[in-house]
Amino acid sequence: MTDIAAIEAAAARAAGVVRRTPLLSSPFLDEIAGRRVFVKAECLQHTGSFKFRGGWSALSSLPEPARASGVIAYSSGNHAQGVACAAKLMGVPAVIVMPRDAPALKIANTRALGADVVLYDRAGNENREEIGAAIAAERGLTLVRPYDEPMVIAGQGTCGLEIAEQAAEEGIDTAEVLVCCGGGGLTAGVALALEAKAPGLRVRPAEPEGFDDTARSLAAGERIGNTGPQSGFCDAILTPAPGEITFPILSRLCGPGVVVTDDEVRAAMRAAFLRLKLVIEPGGAVALAAALFHGDELDGDAVIATASGGNVDAEVFAEVLAG
Amino acid sequence: MTDIAAIEAAAARAAGVVRRTPLLSSPFLDEIAGRRVFVKAECLQHTGSFKFRGGWSALSSLPEPARASGVIAYSSGNHAQGVACAAKLMGVPAVIVMPRDAPALKIANTRALGADVVLYDRAGNENREEIGAAIAAERGLTLVRPYDEPMVIAGQGTCGLEIAEQAAEEGIDTAEVLVCCGGGGLTAGVALALEAKAPGLRVRPAEPEGFDDTARSLAAGERIGNTGPQSGFCDAILTPAPGEITFPILSRLCGPGVVVTDDEVRAAMRAAFLRLKLVIEPGGAVALAAALFHGDELDGDAVIATASGGNVDAEVFAEVLAG
Repeated sequence: MTDIAAIEAAAARAAGVVRRTPLLSSPFLDEIAGRRVFVKAECLQHTGSFKFRGGWSALSSLPEPARASGVIAYSSGNHAQGVACAAKLMGVPAVIVMPRDAPALKIANTRALGADVVLYDRAGNENREEIGAAIAAERGLTLVRPYDEPMVIAGQGTCGLEIAEQAAEEGIDTAEVLVCCGGGGLTAGVALALEAKAPGLRVRPAEPEGFDDTARSLAAGERIGNTGPQSGFCDAILTPAPGEITFPILSRLCGPGVVVTDDEVRAAMRAAFLRLKLVIEPGGAVALAAALFHGDELDGDAVIATASGGNVDAEVFAEVLAG
Repeated sequence: MTDIAAIEAAAARAAGVVRRTPLLSSPFLDEIAGRRVFVKAECLQHTGSFKFRGGWSALSSLPEPARASGVIAYSSGNHAQGVACAAKLMGVPAVIVMPRDAPALKIANTRALGADVVLYDRAGNENREEIGAAIAAERGLTLVRPYDEPMVIAGQGTCGLEIAEQAAEEGIDTAEVLVCCGGGGLTAGVALALEAKAPGLRVRPAEPEGFDDTARSLAAGERIGNTGPQSGFCDAILTPAPGEITFPILSRLCGPGVVVTDDEVRAAMRAAFLRLKLVIEPGGAVALAAALFHGDELDGDAVIATASGGNVDAEVFAEVLAG
């Protein structure tokens, strides 16, 4: 069970290791959105995404014998790097199961961080959970799930603690907080932290069109999966359905989901390049796209958008800049 | 006369307005450089460069009657935006004299910040100092010089105060601090701040090939100008010669200059994109290029490189990414 005490304990374990990322803004973004826009720049976190928070939290909470045996994770790339980097810093062996069509940069980085990378075919019938479970059993590894894992959610919640502090520094008492949402680990962690520390800030999950399982599930009051393709432009946040552990938290604490188009995501990436000097990957720009282009679905004078990651291949980024 | 008291006074005036930019790092950059590399991300400052520090410092130190009459500045673009933004926030009228061939983004942003932009022809015989002086006299404006201005140097020095604090947080007692150097305002300000607050940190100016007036002047012990072309890839830092006020400070406090090629600058921009998720403009990437590719000219286990700005046009950035 993840609660504010677990998040604060994760923050204590993270001190001096996890980076406190800045909350950025630009009058040019405010003008587009028609309200004040603040961007929580998690793309500046170690490994280029918030996932290092959860990876460090999970590994630092393991008992010593489990750490010595090693860990395994499955991920399209950001959780992979987060766990691999945490494992490297702690001297823990790590196996990472990744889809063969993940961005080349994410696979290369995970390998460079010392992890043993096992590729699988997402379009075929291979199942990453089954592959992971089989290797974990065979080698005696501890599985670190990407979002349905209490210690991972607690780690992502440390981002929410920072948002609460930084909003107070900016004089923001009430605002919507848009969070890029895949399985819901960051969304749940941030929502729990804000519930305790900044109850005037309400989390709104942001998702890309065609992968709006969380928005539909929140509207329906029960978990509903995606039925379309399994891969797309916003690779980092394309999960099949809300998590078992995360969804009840989202259902209790979040406002309605906001769904954006891939073109809006591209425009948000260009705006972040131009106005914030930040590199945001497609899945990490979904919340900013919602802030800039879905203002009619938002309440209040200020909005805070997480920029959850920046691991985008150079060719893709250059194409986005070309418009 | 700029001294540590003037820098600390500028920091007091900047509180709550100027952003404290993060000091970032990546193990991948350390590997390239063969030592620990830290990047002071001034591209994340308001207006996308450190110049807002100097602009705010200068305008906030003006007596009320001078502020009401307005200010004038000449600049290839970053000082323009820094002064324009400070003027807008204070409600001060601003005229900015800019070269016609400055990056389109910098001209557009300066206008969007409410300044009255006057363009001149850099390749012709027009002289920005003379144009600026004539308009200043005609309209009763206060001239805010880009670097040979004590209050501007004091403002840039606030970046050095932050570097001193952040180096201490990282446990760095001794290091070389590479600063992208045009007229020397940032270099002088940072050097003065570090002299007082972190004497184990030594500033090294970094410049692009063909515009290495500061490196040659430091070696000669007197101010020597550039004789080649007046424009180039690293547009932000292409000044004709070290400043009259800045050079004696550099001469007293800095180590030898480091000179990099445009190709090294491009590689540094790609590295910052990939490893730090930062957008750095050519002139702002000169120090990182020196840190990554001129290690044999540096001493010590750690180097701190300023990333002084990020105002690069999308087409140029896309070309750089393409390699």
